[in-house]
Amino acid sequence: MSARKSIGIDKYKDFPEWYHSVLKEAGIIDIRYPVKGMNVWMPYGLKALRLTQRILMDLLEETGHQEAYFPTMVPESVFSREKDFLKGFGGETFVVEGTVTRKFNERLFVRPTSETVMYYMWNMWIKGRKDLPLKMYQVVNVFRYETKMTHPILRVREIMGFIEAHTAHATMEEAEKQISEAIAIYKEFFNRLQLPYFIVKTPPWDTFAGAEYNYDFITVMPDGKGLELGSVINLGQKFAKAFEIKYMDTDGVEKHVYQTCYGVSERVLGAVIGIHGDETGLFFPPDIAPIQVVIVPVMKPGENQVLEYAFKVSNILKAHGVRVFVDTDQEHTPGWKYYYWEMKGVPTRIEVGRKELDASTVTIARRDKREKHVVKLEEAVDLLRKIWSEINEYLRSRALEHLARKTVFLPEHPEDKGFDGLVIAPWDGSRECAEELEKETGKNVLGEITESPLNLPPPSQYTACGKAKADRYALLGVTY
Amino acid sequence: MSARKSIGIDKYKDFPEWYHSVLKEAGIIDIRYPVKGMNVWMPYGLKALRLTQRILMDLLEETGHQEAYFPTMVPESVFSREKDFLKGFGGETFVVEGTVTRKFNERLFVRPTSETVMYYMWNMWIKGRKDLPLKMYQVVNVFRYETKMTHPILRVREIMGFIEAHTAHATMEEAEKQISEAIAIYKEFFNRLQLPYFIVKTPPWDTFAGAEYNYDFITVMPDGKGLELGSVINLGQKFAKAFEIKYMDTDGVEKHVYQTCYGVSERVLGAVIGIHGDETGLFFPPDIAPIQVVIVPVMKPGENQVLEYAFKVSNILKAHGVRVFVDTDQEHTPGWKYYYWEMKGVPTRIEVGRKELDASTVTIARRDKREKHVVKLEEAVDLLRKIWSEINEYLRSRALEHLARKTVFLPEHPEDKGFDGLVIAPWDGSRECAEELEKETGKNVLGEITESPLNLPPPSQYTACGKAKADRYALLGVTY
Repeated sequence: MSARKSIGIDKYKDFPEWYHSVLKEAGIIDIRYPVKGMNVWMPYGLKALRLTQRILMDLLEETGHQEAYFPTMVPESVFSREKDFLKGFGGETFVVEGTVTRKFNERLFVRPTSETVMYYMWNMWIKGRKDLPLKMYQVVNVFRYETKMTHPILRVREIMGFIEAHTAHATMEEAEKQISEAIAIYKEFFNRLQLPYFIVKTPPWDTFAGAEYNYDFITVMPDGKGLELGSVINLGQKFAKAFEIKYMDTDGVEKHVYQTCYGVSERVLGAVIGIHGDETGLFFPPDIAPIQVVIVPVMKPGENQVLEYAFKVSNILKAHGVRVFVDTDQEHTPGWKYYYWEMKGVPTRIEVGRKELDASTVTIARRDKREKHVVKLEEAVDLLRKIWSEINEYLRSRALEHLARKTVFLPEHPEDKGFDGLVIAPWDGSRECAEELEKETGKNVLGEITESPLNLPPPSQYTACGKAKADRYALLGVTY
Repeated sequence: MSARKSIGIDKYKDFPEWYHSVLKEAGIIDIRYPVKGMNVWMPYGLKALRLTQRILMDLLEETGHQEAYFPTMVPESVFSREKDFLKGFGGETFVVEGTVTRKFNERLFVRPTSETVMYYMWNMWIKGRKDLPLKMYQVVNVFRYETKMTHPILRVREIMGFIEAHTAHATMEEAEKQISEAIAIYKEFFNRLQLPYFIVKTPPWDTFAGAEYNYDFITVMPDGKGLELGSVINLGQKFAKAFEIKYMDTDGVEKHVYQTCYGVSERVLGAVIGIHGDETGLFFPPDIAPIQVVIVPVMKPGENQVLEYAFKVSNILKAHGVRVFVDTDQEHTPGWKYYYWEMKGVPTRIEVGRKELDASTVTIARRDKREKHVVKLEEAVDLLRKIWSEINEYLRSRALEHLARKTVFLPEHPEDKGFDGLVIAPWDGSRECAEELEKETGKNVLGEITESPLNLPPPSQYTACGKAKADRYALLGVTY
């Protein structure tokens, strides 16, 4: 353990330095693995990720998605069936040609995402209307040889925690309803993590390979770069036709199904880290904090009753389902520990000493303000839950401030075209205007904003690129 | 859904046919995926696997193992550092040479197991005695191009649920203690699944690549083939030397660590399926049954009160943490459903009809005997738990009978050398005698039995291969 107690770097001034320090000091990942873009997840970071994944998996289960597992490798011939997909993903797809001692007859492609892997099987599974809708998800590692610069967690070559959902439907209307459900699920998920986001519909010229259209959830990191948190894709019938996924309709006619898919990766935890963290270090929302409460005994050497009391408190909290850790380490002072656990993002701390023991109380400190609360032991759990809910509010509003700070509304700040963040510009949906905006701002049109965390006036009062009347807003940014 | 109600095949007469039927009809996996040795896990099968994995993960967590995640691909240069390991695994290791459009400077090997992946990092993590012991595990997919014939779940080329634990210690004694802990964990795990096993110490000439020695847990399938359920390996200092994993001891001298590793895969669920199943179909131990209780409403069309009552019962059970499903399907008769869910291995069934509704009772049927129990609704949960515990006893004793039936003790049945199962033979540990036994039986020596589910007399009363006095027993078998 280094002597440094808190990160002590302003994330807005030097995000790469801040981010790398937090990942390392808080024990999230180790970036020293000898393959570029592949990271080692440390136990503390992985626990936060597992808790994060659990939230989404529960939301998927509650809405009738069933977990399945499809293989990692797909024969080249199967991978190549949908031509747009092959074109879009081929260049970044890892290829296995054999083992150390043997060459295969057919090359195996390592999944960059699982459409082709799954839909080969769906061809056999879907026969009639009663097999629809089919709603599945899996939690898997996928591999993409990114040519963009890699960034720990945010842009990697092994995505180790991809939660991909896939659905099939009898009609386009049902598929569109599914798109709405998926958006609602993701909204709930990101809201639980207190992450603010724009939802954009990507322009036709930048749509997911093999799709009709897709919606992206976009947030912004402290360095101003946009980050795609999740993607919801209407595949239409493209894959259904490539893989001959058909059902016998009630009218006796065989029809191709309509499909959707949507995915989220460990990247969402990178967003949580970057957006909620501060100069002290990490700040986990209580719902995904591996340790929700750290208990620090404040005691003289050998004052064992205090230690026993600390474990008594711990056991009570555990019985209520609280994730708690008692820091019994003797090497460091309580003050050092306070900073250390704040740096690790633990949202609440309990201090117990002689005084608390004698009065059967605990002193609760919180990561969001310098306030401490002394309460009777039996009231501790209720107070913790109240504090966590306040902390969630605090994180939510701070994250929104962050997003506002890193987003510029172009009509009001026309001088800020080169702004280091996201840019909102009136738009008419045309490619010409999009290209003009991209040139002016040096950013990419990420899509048409369909939902904004910031209040925007009706676009009709502006012109798009000084020409036509605007009927929407474009979100522009440089993304990870 | 086929019209077939139960599997109707004697697993001892035609195991491959029985096994494939169960996997398909019960919705465990789909073997039609177009890469040999790679299977698709269906939701029902996967849920059973997740519940199974959870038991072992909890046991690992309780004993201080922390979950981490290490990348799937390892550079050739790192993979090749431990020469025995390279020799042992090289031939079956998948190799990535590049993407569709690009060749890499260095080939990437896809993990067949993660020693080299992890220990490269441990070199950086372990510095002093306070970093030891290090106890980690991960749940990952690993890839082995098996040249042996593949079998669904039992021998595959993508092992999709490998739970591998790895540890490092300051001394050989501590590593050996860890071996004992690992064995205790696995015993508890397999006992929870009601699986009987032999523990054998593998002979030096058949030890895990890069290891000092290892223990294997061996069970036997209905076709008489042995199945390795798990392996506990003492790596000694071989990898520590190859990867220079050293710590500064309290005496100021840098020393190499001692390491162990142990792993279990989804294969264990294949054993559960094969060993506990019967002519009716699957039979899940209640602890891992995706559905512990199926509720079948017995009602006339439109008798909605019965349906409401079924859901009332379901909600009560759910509130007690029971995994329950109400079969509201209208197409099939209750009788059809009884068989169907028994085939799927559901250990208990609740029937509710007009009579149960009026009397506020439920009728509980069980998968192990033709008995039914009528109880007051409020007593249902307690009775279910009691029945499950009896079912566990039943499965345990039936599995032991199965194992006894498929194992021959050679001194008592010298004519059964060619027996279709495991063979126990007196042994002196020598390679010569092992080879003689192998020749006589047409089987392989799997190791020296260190723990047996069957009572064995002291070996000293027998001679090994008719020559020296036996001081142990060899377990012989043909394995998956």
